[in-house]
Parts: sequence; structure tokens; C-alpha cells
Amino acid sequence: MPGMELSLTTDMLIEGRHFLPGAEPRALGHKSLAVNLSDLAASGAKPRWMMLSLSLPAADESWLKGFSNGLFALAEQHGIDLVGGDTTRGAILTISITALGEVPCGTALTRAGAAAGDDIWVSGALGGAAFALEYPMRSAPAAKRLHEPEPRIALGERLRGLATSAIDLSDGLAGDLRHVLDRSRVGAVVHYDRLPTDAALAGERNPEFEKRCVLSGGEDYELLFTAPREASAAVDTLSRELGLPLTRIGCIEEGAGLLILDSEGRPIRASGAFDHFADG
Amino acid sequence: MPGMELSLTTDMLIEGRHFLPGAEPRALGHKSLAVNLSDLAASGAKPRWMMLSLSLPAADESWLKGFSNGLFALAEQHGIDLVGGDTTRGAILTISITALGEVPCGTALTRAGAAAGDDIWVSGALGGAAFALEYPMRSAPAAKRLHEPEPRIALGERLRGLATSAIDLSDGLAGDLRHVLDRSRVGAVVHYDRLPTDAALAGERNPEFEKRCVLSGGEDYELLFTAPREASAAVDTLSRELGLPLTRIGCIEEGAGLLILDSEGRPIRASGAFDHFADG
Repeated sequence: MPGMELSLTTDMLIEGRHFLPGAEPRALGHKSLAVNLSDLAASGAKPRWMMLSLSLPAADESWLKGFSNGLFALAEQHGIDLVGGDTTRGAILTISITALGEVPCGTALTRAGAAAGDDIWVSGALGGAAFALEYPMRSAPAAKRLHEPEPRIALGERLRGLATSAIDLSDGLAGDLRHVLDRSRVGAVVHYDRLPTDAALAGERNPEFEKRCVLSGGEDYELLFTAPREASAAVDTLSRELGLPLTRIGCIEEGAGLLILDSEGRPIRASGAFDHFADG
Repeated sequence: MPGMELSLTTDMLIEGRHFLPGAEPRALGHKSLAVNLSDLAASGAKPRWMMLSLSLPAADESWLKGFSNGLFALAEQHGIDLVGGDTTRGAILTISITALGEVPCGTALTRAGAAAGDDIWVSGALGGAAFALEYPMRSAPAAKRLHEPEPRIALGERLRGLATSAIDLSDGLAGDLRHVLDRSRVGAVVHYDRLPTDAALAGERNPEFEKRCVLSGGEDYELLFTAPREASAAVDTLSRELGLPLTRIGCIEEGAGLLILDSEGRPIRASGAFDHFADG
């Protein structure tokens, strides 16, 4: 389309590595596309097309039907056409999806635009997917979040011209925010007690487990974005219009590194992606 | 780009299925991209971008270096940028490439435009790749054809506005031509003794093996295309300009089915993809 530029993303999911053998095929079809759409959402793109390559140990019709149902239900929801792909026999179930979207020229969101003074926002709630990975049976909503994440497409499109940077939370808040800081050459302060925590973690009595889920659990597929302070009223309005919580969790600073503070203003250390804290 | 439309293709190559364990990494990098470019060539597109997903059993630096060298040498030759991808660890080496090209709106070649009376043409020579698969050491040029095919990009671009349909020969002449006939709802007569046969087959004394290589061997990655009789002088000129043999091998007919005739005008039967002959 004239005046539009392409946004592209690709992901390869391998049985035993990205999902368990025996994973429910319909949910797997949904998630395989959802993780790609989440990345398009972070660029502010409108999804348009997808390509699918499948390697299957055997032609299992009932598996294929379930997988296709999950994949195409999500594709239809966002008006995405399948424009190519291939299916082959291989010993390990492997799913490779490429998704393409369009965004008006020059308006694509990247990880590179955060500036000192910007607020840091996240959508929805954090930690649910990691909770469900640890306790598969304790919370149906958290399990759905893990297995059938909803890519924040509508939010991404509305953030064009409003956010200065964006990323989707696939690896965990601390690690993903770090990618924004690195690319934008800035630092950040985040207040742990402002983070929107998934309801599944409400009764959690192990604070270390909670922190691990919220800060470095990953797979929540919410969006993290930065916006100038002046934009905060517009972000609040957007939150109401979309019916999606958008929470201000901290601020971009000059310098480098990520500082996460507890309610007393003391630095928190956590595991995983948050180990980068040391150079904050 | 305004006035252009996208052409997309994707292929997944799996060790043990599409290539042997221990395949030379540089050649594998070349071929992984070449098979995608061959498909773009058949649409008349100019290749622009690629995405690469790799699953590797281990981070083998020397393998990765060889693979990258082969992949990027071919990419640079055609001015293609890598715009995305990911690398993960997985038990079986799996390569998934998506290639994107551009073609002026409304000029893309498809399999659907062949009309009764059109000539059928093929580029280059046929059967070399199949010969090399059977006899890996007998012909260095045939082995190169098998392991490092040259996608016919320049030819594809020049066929826009000249050819009525096109396809690349990945599965073998008979099977691939059949795809054109099915999509165009026409039939065809092909003269076996007009087919350009790879030099590696020159001394071949087993006529059945030769036919199998030429008609259903696959992996030659030449282009097959159809063009109106009036275009034959233009096709001959194009052949001279590109320094690439373009050979008229038969004619599109009303009806359905594929008839391949020997030098006496008798129908030939062959194996593999050519089994469709029965309903010709």
C-alpha cells in the first residue's frame, strides 16, 4: 500500500524446547501466531499476512485440525491472510511462522526512542504466565494467559505517535526493558510496588517467587512502552477506551542501567534477566 | 514502494530430510536461500529482504561461519537484506527462510496464465541435480548444480510482460508443469527429444534413468514458462542477452493432462511425478 511500510517478524517453535510434547494443538496454533502478532503490536503495525512452515513427525489429521482451528481463529480475528508456507515430515514437531504487518511510513514504534523524563508504562498484568508454568492447575485465567496469550494489537496501533518506544514482554519485564534502555542509550527507575501483578499471584506468600514471576517470568505478552509526561492523560484515556489497564511503573533517566526500588525506596535484586542490575 | 506489490515465499529445510547430516555448511547456506529465490524468480520479483530462523543442536561456530558465508554471499549478489529471524537450540538442524521480493503491481507471473497455443519453454539444462544425487562424484558441474543452484532471478524479471505463466523446477519437469496445467486449466504436449539435457547425462546408457532424471528428478531450479507464439523471437533475444539457453519444449493445448512424446511421436511413460500421465 502506498505510504505504508512493512513490519516483519518470525518465530520458530520447537517441541520439547518451546512447548511440551502433547501440548494441546488448538492452543498451540493460537500461541504460535500470537507470539508473532505480539511483536508486530510492539511496532504499532496492523497485521496483514502470515506464512506457516510446519514439520510434523506424521500426518496426524486430528492434530492438524486442532492446530489450524487455533491458528485461523486468531488470524481471522485480526483479518490476517495466509500467503504461503509448506509442510514437511520431520522427527520433531517444528512450527515456523512469519507475520507481516503494515504501518504508515515513519510511524513504526521501535526500542530506540525512549528519552530521559519519559514515563514507563505496561499494559495488563504481569507474572501470570510464569505462575501457570509453575502451578499449571491453580489458576485457569493464568493458564489461559500462558497458553493462549492475547497480542495487544489494538493498543500497539493506538500508541503510534504517542509512545516514544515499545517492546512486547516475552522474556520478562526486567530483561525486555533492558533491551529498550540499551537501544535508547538511557537508564530507568522502576517502582516494584507499582507493577500490576496478575491476580493469580494475589495469595502468593513467597516474595522471591512473586518477584521472579513478575520481573523475569516472561511470556505475558503485554506491551511495555515509554511516553512523555505530557502524554499521561492521553494514555489514561486510551486505557479507558480499550478497557485495558495501562500502568505507569517508573521513569526513564539519563545514563544507563535499570534500578528497581521496593516500597521503601531500596534497590531490589532478582534472578534471571534482572542480573543486569549490577551495572545500574 | 508505491506501485509495487510483494512476492513472498518460505521454505523449511530439515537435516536428514532435505539434506544429509554433515552437509557442507557453506553450500547449505547458499542453497537454503537459493530455493527461496528460485520461487521469487518464478513470480518475476526482484528479491529484497529475507528472514532466517535456525534451530541448531549446539552452537558450532565453524558451522555457523560457513553457513553464513554461503547465505550472505548469495544475498549480497542479489542485494538482499536480512530483516529478522531467530536462533534456538533444537535436537535437529532446521533452517527456515522467508524471502520477500517486489514486483510492479499487476505484473507478477503466476502458474495460472497459460493459454492454448502458447509455447512451453525451459531455461538451462535438466537432470543434472538428479544425476549428482545418484552419482555424487562423477560430475563436478552436476554436483554444483545440486548443492549450489543458481536461482534464475534475472530471467524471471525479464519474463514480466512476456511470459503468460511460470514456475521453478524444484520437483521435476513433469510434476511442476502439471501444476501450471492444473492452475491454468489447460493441457500440454511436450517433445522429449527437445528437452535440454544436462551434460552430465551425455554418456548415460540407461534410458530409463535418463528419463527419470530429466522428467522427474527435481532440484534443477530452472524456470519453466509459457509464452505466446508471437513472443518467440523476443525469448530468443532474451536468451542471447542473458547468455542462458532458453529452449522451446512443447505447446499448451485445450483440455487437460500432459502428453510427453518420444522422437517417433509415441507417448512416453515415466516414474514419479509423471504418473499423472494416465489422465492426459
